[in-house]
Amino acid sequence: MNIILLSGGSGKRLWPLSNEIRSKQFLQLFKRRDGIYESMLQRVYNQLNNIGIQTNVTIAASKKQISAVYAQLGNDVDVCMEPCRKDTFPAIALSAAYLVDVKKVKPTEAVVVCPVDPLVTNDYFRALIALQYQAELEMANIVLMGIVPTAPTDKYGYILPAGDKKLASVKSFKEKPTPEMAKEYIAQGALWNGGVFAFKLQYVLSKAKEILGYNRYDELLAHYDSFEEVSFDVAVVEKEKSVQVMRFSGDWMDMGTWDALADAMSDPILGKGVIDETSSGVQIINEMDVPILAVGLHDVVISASPDGILVSDKDTSSFIKPFVDKFDSQARFTEKSWGSIKILDVESGSQTVKITLNRGQSMEYESHARRDELWVVISGEGQAILDGKRNNVKKGDIITMRAGCKHTITAAKELKMIEIRLGEEISADDQQKYDLLAALNAASM
Amino acid sequence: MNIILLSGGSGKRLWPLSNEIRSKQFLQLFKRRDGIYESMLQRVYNQLNNIGIQTNVTIAASKKQISAVYAQLGNDVDVCMEPCRKDTFPAIALSAAYLVDVKKVKPTEAVVVCPVDPLVTNDYFRALIALQYQAELEMANIVLMGIVPTAPTDKYGYILPAGDKKLASVKSFKEKPTPEMAKEYIAQGALWNGGVFAFKLQYVLSKAKEILGYNRYDELLAHYDSFEEVSFDVAVVEKEKSVQVMRFSGDWMDMGTWDALADAMSDPILGKGVIDETSSGVQIINEMDVPILAVGLHDVVISASPDGILVSDKDTSSFIKPFVDKFDSQARFTEKSWGSIKILDVESGSQTVKITLNRGQSMEYESHARRDELWVVISGEGQAILDGKRNNVKKGDIITMRAGCKHTITAAKELKMIEIRLGEEISADDQQKYDLLAALNAASM
Repeated sequence: MNIILLSGGSGKRLWPLSNEIRSKQFLQLFKRRDGIYESMLQRVYNQLNNIGIQTNVTIAASKKQISAVYAQLGNDVDVCMEPCRKDTFPAIALSAAYLVDVKKVKPTEAVVVCPVDPLVTNDYFRALIALQYQAELEMANIVLMGIVPTAPTDKYGYILPAGDKKLASVKSFKEKPTPEMAKEYIAQGALWNGGVFAFKLQYVLSKAKEILGYNRYDELLAHYDSFEEVSFDVAVVEKEKSVQVMRFSGDWMDMGTWDALADAMSDPILGKGVIDETSSGVQIINEMDVPILAVGLHDVVISASPDGILVSDKDTSSFIKPFVDKFDSQARFTEKSWGSIKILDVESGSQTVKITLNRGQSMEYESHARRDELWVVISGEGQAILDGKRNNVKKGDIITMRAGCKHTITAAKELKMIEIRLGEEISADDQQKYDLLAALNAASM
Repeated sequence: MNIILLSGGSGKRLWPLSNEIRSKQFLQLFKRRDGIYESMLQRVYNQLNNIGIQTNVTIAASKKQISAVYAQLGNDVDVCMEPCRKDTFPAIALSAAYLVDVKKVKPTEAVVVCPVDPLVTNDYFRALIALQYQAELEMANIVLMGIVPTAPTDKYGYILPAGDKKLASVKSFKEKPTPEMAKEYIAQGALWNGGVFAFKLQYVLSKAKEILGYNRYDELLAHYDSFEEVSFDVAVVEKEKSVQVMRFSGDWMDMGTWDALADAMSDPILGKGVIDETSSGVQIINEMDVPILAVGLHDVVISASPDGILVSDKDTSSFIKPFVDKFDSQARFTEKSWGSIKILDVESGSQTVKITLNRGQSMEYESHARRDELWVVISGEGQAILDGKRNNVKKGDIITMRAGCKHTITAAKELKMIEIRLGEEISADDQQKYDLLAALNAASM
C-alpha cells in the first residue's frame, strides 16, 4: 500500500508553539501509554506502520522541515523533499513522480494521500486501505474520504454526495461555509472534506504534465521553484468530473487549532504551570523554563514558548492567525536534526544563543561574512573545526571566530554552548555552507 | 512636617512583576502626563514633595531595597535602612529613632507614618497634615486615618469609631472580615484602616523601649536582627486605649493587588502585546521581549516577566500569593543601583546572565570561591579591574575570571555584557565583597 503523508505547512494557527521552521506536526504534545510524548507526525507514522499490512509511506516535506522529520522518525524514513513550499498540488505531483521514478512503484498502482494532523484510531487506517482498493478499481479518477459531520462547523470544506450510500459519486464541493449554511448542507447529506484522496499514480502524473508541464521526478525537482502555489483541491479535484466519495464515520479530530489540540491532550498542564481550583477547562502548554499561574479562568488555553505567549478563549482560538502574521517572524527556538538552537537575547549589534548538539552530531560547516562569533562550552565534550584545524573542546573552553572563519563542532557527548554573535548586521541569510564530510576528513589536529 | 514612608515588603501579590528583590513599589507602571512611567514610590514621593509645605520625608526600606530606592529617587533622599525585614513595628521604631538621633528632630514633634502603595490625590496629603496637627494636640496617643468605605470588601481591616464625627475616638478594630460581616460593620459606621498613623516621636520611642528594650538608633540598629517580626497594629495600636480616628472620604485606592493595579493603569497594554477586538477588560503588562496575544478574554490580567507568567481573572487575582510562595524563588530579573541583571539561562553547572551597567556606574568589587566567570562585552565601553589591574574593555572583548579573582567593571558609556558562570555550585551566597573605592584608587593600568 502506497501512502503519501503530507507533512503540512508552517501552522501559525498553533502559535506560539509552531513557527516558520517548527510546524505543529513536530510538537511532542501527545502522551503515549508508556508516558513518552510524541508528535502528530510520530503518532500517525507509527499508526501507519502498525496497521498490519505492508505500507510504503513517503513523507512529503519541505526543505526547512527535513531535519525535524529525520530527528523524529529516524534516518531510514522515505522523504520526498520539496525544495520550497508550493502548496499541495506541486507537492503531490513531486511525490507521485518520486514513487515512480525513485522508488520504482508501477504507475498503475494507486496511492493514498493523507494529511498528518488528524487525531484518529485504527478505523481510519482501515478506511485508507478501502480507499486505495476503490481507486484501483478505476470506477473514478479520484476517490475521496468524506467524514460524517458531528457538528455544523465552519472550519472545513463540505462534499455533497449523490445519495447516501457508503460510496457515492460527488455532486459538488462547498468551501468553508457559515455555521448556518453548514447546517443546511448537513441536512442535504454533506460530508466533511478530510483532505484524504486516492488515485492511480499515472492519473496524477498526467495532471502534472498537463498543469505543470513536467511529470518526471528530476524535471519536477529542477523546475519546482517556478511552479505556482496551488492546492490539489483547486488544481485537480474541483475540476474533475469523475470523483467518488467514501463515507467515514469513525473517530476523526482535526488538530489544526488550539481548541482541538487542547481537547486531545491528556494532561491539563504540559511544562511548568499551576491552575488554581476555581479555574475549569484550562489548558497550559508551557515551553519556557518559568512557571505559568492560571487563576479564576474558564475554557482558556495558555501557551508560552520562546516566541511568545498566547492566552485565548478556546472557542475563539481558531482565529489567531491574522494577529500572528503581524508578529516579528524570527523563530526563537528551532529544532535541528543535530540538536536545537534557542535565542536567549537580541540586541542591536549582538545576539546570544544557546546551542545543544546531540551526542555524535555535527553542526553545519559554515562561515559568516558580516559577523564575528564566539562559543563558550557550558557542558559536554567535542571537537571544533576552525578553518580546517581540529580542536578538542570541553566545558569552560572559549572558541572565537572572526567573520569569514569556517567553523563547525561535533559532540562527543551531548554538548551545550552559548554562542555570541557580534556584528552590525546579524542575519540568517549571512551563512556560507561548506562540505562537512570533506572538512572532517581533511582536518588536521 | 515629618513623614515616614514605609517602602513595603516583597509584594508577592503582584507576581511575576515583583519578586524578593524587586517589590511592587518600584514597578514603573504609572504614566505621568508627560508620558514617562513612574513607580508607586516615585509617584508618592513626588506628591509629598509637591504639597507645598516643608516636608521631611524619611523612607523606611530594607537593605535589599536600598539600591532600588536610590536608583528611583536619587542619592539625596533620606533613607532609614532596616538591616533585615522585621515587619512594621521594628521598622517604625527604628525610623523614629533615626529622626531623633540622626536627623535631630525633637521627640516632642509629631510624625505621620504612611504606606507607599495607595493611589491618591492631593486631598490625601492635606489629610496627612491634619493628622499630624491632631497628633501634636496630644488628645490621644495615636491618630489614625479612617477611610470611608466604598464597598464591603474583605481586603482591609476595619475601624469602628465612637460616633460619626470627622474626628472620633476608636471603639474597636476588626480584622479583615468576610464580605457579609463587612456590610454589617459598614452599617455600624466602620471605616477602612488605611495603615496611616500619626503620633509624637516620644510616644513611639517609649513603646520601643518597652517592647524591644531599646530606643536609641544605634542600639536598635545593633540589635535589629534579634527583634521579633510584629506589625505596628498588633504591637501598639490594638493595645492602646487612647486612639483617635479621622475620617477621610477622598480618593484612595490600594495598589496591593492586580485588579486594583490594572484599574489604575491608563493603557491596556504595557510592553509587547495585542488584544483582539472580541476581548474586553483585558490588561497586559509584559516585561518580556516577545509578544503576548490575548483572544476572546474578559476581565483578565496577563502579566509576564523573566520570573513567570500570570493569567488571572481580575476579581480572583487577590488570591495568588499561596501559589507564588511555592514557586522557585530565584529572581530572574533584578534592578540594581548601577543597572540590571537578567538571568538568560540556567543549567546544572552553568548560568548565563545579561548585565547592563549604566553610564558611569560600577558593579560591586567581588570574588566567588566556587565558580569561574567570563564576560563578553556586547556593547559600550568601560574599564574592568581584575585583582587590582585595570583593563579597558569594548564590544567583543572577553574577560575571564577564575574562582577567587576579584573583579568589577565600570561603564564609561552604558555597557552591556553577557556573563557566563561555570561551577558545580552556583549560588548568590558565594560572593565576597571588597572595597570598590580603595580598589579604584589602587588599581594599576
